[in-house]
Amino acid sequence: MDLMQTVKVDLGERSYNIFIGEGILSAAGDLLKAVGISGKVAVVTNPTVAQLYLDPVHDALQSCGFEVTPVLIPDGEEYKTLATLSTIFDRLISERFERKSCVVSLGGGVVGDVAGFAAATYLRGTPFVQIPTTLLAQVDSSVGGKTGVNHSRGKNLIGAFYQPRAVIIDVTLLSSLPRRELVAGMAEVIKYGIIEDPALFGQLEEKLDRLLALDRRILTEVVATSCAIKARVIEKDEREDDHRAVLNFGHTVGHALEAATNYQRFLHGEAVAIGMAKAAAIAYQQGFCDTMTMGRIIKLIKMAGLSTEIPEGVSTQSLIQGMEVDKKSADGKIKFVICTGIGHTCFHSLTAEQIGDALGT
Amino acid sequence: MDLMQTVKVDLGERSYNIFIGEGILSAAGDLLKAVGISGKVAVVTNPTVAQLYLDPVHDALQSCGFEVTPVLIPDGEEYKTLATLSTIFDRLISERFERKSCVVSLGGGVVGDVAGFAAATYLRGTPFVQIPTTLLAQVDSSVGGKTGVNHSRGKNLIGAFYQPRAVIIDVTLLSSLPRRELVAGMAEVIKYGIIEDPALFGQLEEKLDRLLALDRRILTEVVATSCAIKARVIEKDEREDDHRAVLNFGHTVGHALEAATNYQRFLHGEAVAIGMAKAAAIAYQQGFCDTMTMGRIIKLIKMAGLSTEIPEGVSTQSLIQGMEVDKKSADGKIKFVICTGIGHTCFHSLTAEQIGDALGT
Repeated sequence: MDLMQTVKVDLGERSYNIFIGEGILSAAGDLLKAVGISGKVAVVTNPTVAQLYLDPVHDALQSCGFEVTPVLIPDGEEYKTLATLSTIFDRLISERFERKSCVVSLGGGVVGDVAGFAAATYLRGTPFVQIPTTLLAQVDSSVGGKTGVNHSRGKNLIGAFYQPRAVIIDVTLLSSLPRRELVAGMAEVIKYGIIEDPALFGQLEEKLDRLLALDRRILTEVVATSCAIKARVIEKDEREDDHRAVLNFGHTVGHALEAATNYQRFLHGEAVAIGMAKAAAIAYQQGFCDTMTMGRIIKLIKMAGLSTEIPEGVSTQSLIQGMEVDKKSADGKIKFVICTGIGHTCFHSLTAEQIGDALGT
Repeated sequence: MDLMQTVKVDLGERSYNIFIGEGILSAAGDLLKAVGISGKVAVVTNPTVAQLYLDPVHDALQSCGFEVTPVLIPDGEEYKTLATLSTIFDRLISERFERKSCVVSLGGGVVGDVAGFAAATYLRGTPFVQIPTTLLAQVDSSVGGKTGVNHSRGKNLIGAFYQPRAVIIDVTLLSSLPRRELVAGMAEVIKYGIIEDPALFGQLEEKLDRLLALDRRILTEVVATSCAIKARVIEKDEREDDHRAVLNFGHTVGHALEAATNYQRFLHGEAVAIGMAKAAAIAYQQGFCDTMTMGRIIKLIKMAGLSTEIPEGVSTQSLIQGMEVDKKSADGKIKFVICTGIGHTCFHSLTAEQIGDALGT
C-alpha cells in the first residue's frame, strides 16, 4: 500500500474515518480490524463489480480472519428496491449473521445505498463499511450516511440515515470505470469547488486533464479534499435539516432533468453538470454573481467534457413541474442553492417565472 | 382531562416525554402541537382498534388543525411484515406526506412496531408518536424506540431503533381490553418491580386486585412508574449493548416457550410470567437468591392469574434449543438475567444442564 490519507467525519458517537489511497483495497482486512470489526462479513456487490474486485476483497478479508459471505444483487438502479433488500436479509439470516457481524458494500451508489439500508435495519443495525468503486460513490454517495431504496413512485423515498464504521476508497479502482462514468463523477468534484473551496476549483482548472488521465497522486488528493468538504457539511447538519442542502447545488435542475428524461438519458453527474451551469446562469441573472464567476463555472464543466445545455426536446415547463414535486420545494417558490462567487453560496427561493427565464437562455 | 403525569425519556437530542393519564386521548391534538408537530398526520391502526378509538383520535387531531389520514393495517402478528410496511409507504406517498409530516400509531405492540418502522424509514425518518392501547404496549413496547417487522424465519429481525416524539398513554383505553390481555400485560409490570423497584413490587402485592379492576388512579400511577423504570434503563443503554438486557428478565425462557409453541398458545406476557417464575427458580437453585424472594415472585405472578409452570407436552430440551438460537445466547452458555433479591439483578451465564435442572422441577 502506498500513501494513505485519512479524513475524519466527526459525528460524536457515530464518528468514523474515510481512508483514501492507492491500492488500499488489499488492506481492507486490516482496516476493518482497526475499526473493531470481527467475525462474519457480508460483501454486498453486483456481478460486474464482483468479477473485477470480489476476489481481492475476499482474500484481503479472509487473510485477516474474517468469515466472508459474498451477497450478489442485480446490477442497476431498477433493483434498488425493498425486494432486493429482502433477498439480502434472507442471506444474512441463512448465514446466521449476528448484531456484531458486518455488512460491506463493494460497488457504486446503488450497492452502497441498498447494502447500507440492509445494515441499518438488520437486527436494528449492524456494523457497515463502504468500499465505493465509482468516482461518484467515492466523493459523494459513500459519505454522509444516506442509505435507502426507491419506491415505484419516487427515488430514495424509503431509507435511513446510518453512518458506516469506515469508508475505504481505493482510487486505483477507477481505472476500470467507463470513461463516461468517470467524467460524470467529476461533476460532483467540481460542485465541491464551487460551493466551498476556491483552491480546489483552481486546482481543477489547472489539472483536470491529469485527473481524467487517472494520475493517482492527484486523484487521491482531490478525492480526499472532496470527502473532507462533504464531511464538514455533514458535521454541521447530519440529517439534512438546513445547511446540508448546500450539497444540492446544481441538483434542483439536475434532478428535474433526470426525471423529465425518465432516468434513461443522463447519468446523475451529467444532469448535475447541466444543473450547475443553469444554477450559475440563474445566479448571474438574479444579480448574485458576476459574469466572471458564471464564466469560470461553465468553462470548467465543459473542460471536463460535460454538457452545460438542456437538450432539445426537454421543455422548461416540464423541468419546473419536476422541481415543484421535488421534496426540496416549499411555499410555491422553489428553493435554490445560489453561488455568489467561487466557494460561496446562499439559499434563495425563486418563482417559476424567474427560473424559466434563466433556463430558457 | 384529569390528572396527567409526565415521564421524560432523556436521550439527548432524541429526548421525549411520555404522557400518562385518564382520558388524555382527547388532548392528543394539543399534545402533538406541544411537541412541535404540524400539518399531515397518518394514524396507523387496525380495524379492531379503529372501531373503538379512531373517531375520538381523528376528532382530537382535526380540531387542532391537523390533516388526518387513517391508515388501516390488518390485525395480527402475522401481518408484521415488510409487505404491510410497503402498504403504509404507498399511502404516505399517495397522500404526499413530507419529512415533517407525522406518523401516529394507535394500537398494541404490532401496530406500534410497524408504524414506528415506517416512520423511521419514510424519507429517512419522519416524526412519530405512539398511542398504545394495550397494557403491554403502554408499559413496554411503546417505550424505548424499538421498531421493526418480522421475517418469515424469525421475529423482529428487521427494524430500527427510532425514538418517538411523544407517547400518549390513556389508561381509560384499557377498559376495552380483553381480560386475558390485561392480565398478560401485568407480567411486564411485575417484571419492573422484580428488576428495579421493591416499592412497586410491594404496591402490586397490596393492590393487584384494584389494578385488575381498572382503578384508574392506581393504574395511572403504576403505568407511570413502569414507564419511568424502562426509561431509566434505556437512558443508560439505548441500543441494547449491555445494561438494557436487564429488561429481558423472564424473557429467555419466555421467548423459548413462545417459539416452542409456535406463538399460538401463549400471549407474550403469559410466556414471560412462566419465564420469570423459572428464572426465580434458577436464581434460587444457583444460590443467587433466598427462598423468600423466589416465593414472593411466584406468589405475585399467581395472584395476577398467570401460570408459573411450563405446560405438559413442552420438553425442557426444546426450550433449551430455543434459547440457543435466541440472539441473546453466546459462547455455548446461555446468558440469564438473575434476580438476587426484589429490585436487584445480575447477569450470569449458565450451561444447558444448569437450566435444565431448574426447568425440570
